[in-house]
Amino acid sequence: MTFTAHINIMPLKELLDPQGKAVNSSLHNLGLTGVQDVRVGKHITLKVEAADKQSAENITNEACKKLLVNQVMEGYDFTIVEG
Amino acid sequence: MTFTAHINIMPLKELLDPQGKAVNSSLHNLGLTGVQDVRVGKHITLKVEAADKQSAENITNEACKKLLVNQVMEGYDFTIVEG
Repeated sequence: MTFTAHINIMPLKELLDPQGKAVNSSLHNLGLTGVQDVRVGKHITLKVEAADKQSAENITNEACKKLLVNQVMEGYDFTIVEG
Repeated sequence: MTFTAHINIMPLKELLDPQGKAVNSSLHNLGLTGVQDVRVGKHITLKVEAADKQSAENITNEACKKLLVNQVMEGYDFTIVEG
């Protein structure tokens, strides 16, 4: 079966996010002053061929830990959907 | 009221995504051969101060169109939650 994983990888809350700060200032300069606390991370989608949802989750978790996420600076979560 | 917007920005399906391709190969080299069609985009969260959900959506849309998204190469979607 094929599953699609939607992974969000964000800088940890405790850490400064300079890119987010820059975007925040730019939005204020554009007149969008109601915007705050911008944080910029990554969104990754991938297809996983696996026997069931549980093994698709395991593969996605392994991909995150081995390659996609720097766990010193980033946190992640993901959802798995069929198809 | 404060709302939180979760924005996903992805390269359009019609376009090659070289970063996704590179991640795909790396995952295969790490033994995760069940993974395909990796696409890498951005995930942005921001807080919006607005009167209601509809105006929070409008502000987020404006932020995407004016700054965050390059609509020639990227598509976006977002969800707004209270708080």
